[in-house]
Amino acid sequence: MEYRFSDNVQRLQSSAVRDILKLTQGKEIISFAGGLPAEELFPLDAIRDAAERVFRTGKNSLQYGLTEGFLPLREQLCARMAQKNMHVAPDEMIVTTGSQQAIDLVTRILMNPGDVVLVENPTYLASLQVFGLSGLNVVPVESDKDGMVIEEAERLMKLHKPKMVYVVPTFGNPTGRVWSLERRKGLIELSHRYGVAILEDDPYGEIKFDPNADYPTLFSLDGKAGNVIYTSTFSKTVAPALRTGWAIGNREVIGNMAKAKQAADLHSSTLDQQTLDQLLQHFPLDDHIRTISKAYGERLQQMQTLLTKQGWSDVKWVEPKGGMFLWLELPEALDSEALLRAAVKKNVAFVPGASFYAADPQRNKARLNFTYTTGERMATGITRFAEALNEFMARC
Amino acid sequence: MEYRFSDNVQRLQSSAVRDILKLTQGKEIISFAGGLPAEELFPLDAIRDAAERVFRTGKNSLQYGLTEGFLPLREQLCARMAQKNMHVAPDEMIVTTGSQQAIDLVTRILMNPGDVVLVENPTYLASLQVFGLSGLNVVPVESDKDGMVIEEAERLMKLHKPKMVYVVPTFGNPTGRVWSLERRKGLIELSHRYGVAILEDDPYGEIKFDPNADYPTLFSLDGKAGNVIYTSTFSKTVAPALRTGWAIGNREVIGNMAKAKQAADLHSSTLDQQTLDQLLQHFPLDDHIRTISKAYGERLQQMQTLLTKQGWSDVKWVEPKGGMFLWLELPEALDSEALLRAAVKKNVAFVPGASFYAADPQRNKARLNFTYTTGERMATGITRFAEALNEFMARC
Repeated sequence: MEYRFSDNVQRLQSSAVRDILKLTQGKEIISFAGGLPAEELFPLDAIRDAAERVFRTGKNSLQYGLTEGFLPLREQLCARMAQKNMHVAPDEMIVTTGSQQAIDLVTRILMNPGDVVLVENPTYLASLQVFGLSGLNVVPVESDKDGMVIEEAERLMKLHKPKMVYVVPTFGNPTGRVWSLERRKGLIELSHRYGVAILEDDPYGEIKFDPNADYPTLFSLDGKAGNVIYTSTFSKTVAPALRTGWAIGNREVIGNMAKAKQAADLHSSTLDQQTLDQLLQHFPLDDHIRTISKAYGERLQQMQTLLTKQGWSDVKWVEPKGGMFLWLELPEALDSEALLRAAVKKNVAFVPGASFYAADPQRNKARLNFTYTTGERMATGITRFAEALNEFMARC
Repeated sequence: MEYRFSDNVQRLQSSAVRDILKLTQGKEIISFAGGLPAEELFPLDAIRDAAERVFRTGKNSLQYGLTEGFLPLREQLCARMAQKNMHVAPDEMIVTTGSQQAIDLVTRILMNPGDVVLVENPTYLASLQVFGLSGLNVVPVESDKDGMVIEEAERLMKLHKPKMVYVVPTFGNPTGRVWSLERRKGLIELSHRYGVAILEDDPYGEIKFDPNADYPTLFSLDGKAGNVIYTSTFSKTVAPALRTGWAIGNREVIGNMAKAKQAADLHSSTLDQQTLDQLLQHFPLDDHIRTISKAYGERLQQMQTLLTKQGWSDVKWVEPKGGMFLWLELPEALDSEALLRAAVKKNVAFVPGASFYAADPQRNKARLNFTYTTGERMATGITRFAEALNEFMARC
């Protein structure tokens, strides 16, 4: 039969990143496209030991669990959150299938079709997919190197009366940007003045290259007031395969997220949740995070050195202080989607910048991941990228 | 701040089953409420061995995976589906976080708010939550011991022009009912005549007490025509903690489900998926399913014997031929929600029938799970249940 699909899914574009990942699977392509952490740094032995400990607890470990998540894991996560000045009880937290699901659940419990959400421009593209799937009106806010421009956010709040603003204030995707403290406080103030909920997405906050740098989360700055719903994940700090993230917020928000999650998937894998609970008990995760952050900082340096060596005068970037991405500004006339097609022919991939804009895409941007490849392979990849770009610039 | 929640979540009731599960956690209550499989029959050692094999494949096993699911698992599942006369290629299948997520994804890609879905009455209550969360208009169809009454389904299709009909044709939840072949063919014919998609939910189909009984799925009867989207799960046959289900359907449907799943959670746990892939390679799952089905059949017999011994003339049920539930009809004047409150005081729980009706709830029904408890514990539970019921009937 001829299926008639929902309006929302018809509007939805498949993610460019995922499509490229598919295109490049199993091929000899060196990919700077995916937001993939370094495989060789995964704490495989610790995860294996943790899983073994779970199996030793007996068959009850394989039964259905609570929608809100495995309680001992939530208790440990609350303690970790408290170290970052975010004080919540286990019933103010829900475990999700990656932080991706938290974005979806928050959207489903707060927003009606047509409601307005404000976002940075550019922003995380899979959040744009979530908002599309719920039929939201996505309004981008002008953003600069210090984060969202507060005056613009206020103007748009007055104009559109949004219910929610979605932000990645620390090592944003794709820009790698860190919001200034002033902008963080400014957004919280607006949130209270105009009654707008803030969804703070923080998958990368712990991957910082200066271990002593302190970037307070919006949630911690807002304190107990409860305007901020915060989400993070183990995908970058432990491993993506365990698909475990979490969200914290006020009890009513978390309670409604649990109702929505009952319908969405009942609960997330409890084998994964219990494994992470055991891992947190027996593995020095903070040491591990320092190790991978240091390695990622070195990879960033390597990539910057390789790019600088090319001697391009009109390829620019701001050095990120953490996270996983380098956000390149290419010559103004250059269309990075066309560049990608040329690059893939040379067996190298990245993500064209346009995908990340809710509106007014800048076509001369490119996102390069610097965490997945290293050493010779990174050098070869950047050489290929440079060849594609040089041929392109010669033609422009 | 005062959060304003979405219209859909405000309409959504928390599941009675889940609320009772919460209420009874860690207490001395004997629960016939949850749809829990028998823990002592979980193939823990085989799952542990399978997980160990996954870890031995190396760190790549912990990386991000495909939204559609781990390909070797889909290939093995396609072969299993083919044994049941359902012939699909891996790109006509998507792995989901339990079959619960499949119901949600199908709903999100097909239905706009206000669209009509036809359901059996009573039906699986978490499907009603999914439809509520998407703002659907749920229209129940009169159903009897052979399944949905086809004439009624046709009348309502003409009247409401539904886009989808949701059914559990084999060992339905809560009724345990098996649809007759005639009704199965009848619904497929209607589906073609009126262009209505069928979502066939089959979590229990393999748990059959007569190993030689054959209940062809609607998907297999419809063949390649593609009007049926079918979903099943490992939650009942292996273990719920791994939260792995799957859906099959035509390529366009599966492609759209993948788009929606990218937004919903990117992908399901690949550690779980790879573990199940290894399990299917090295563990005789079909033998295991025969073992648990036999055990569940014996538990059903025990429960029926215990109930029959009470000598009630006005407590009736149809003996189920598979699945996990006994659906009791209590004296007509009896309100089973009030009975539950009395039962919980006696430390026994079940699910009152009213929760399962999209409309016109029958208040004198009760769902009892017979798979989770056994032996002395089941006998004690039924004794407590009988005490509560007898006191109640004496008062009526």
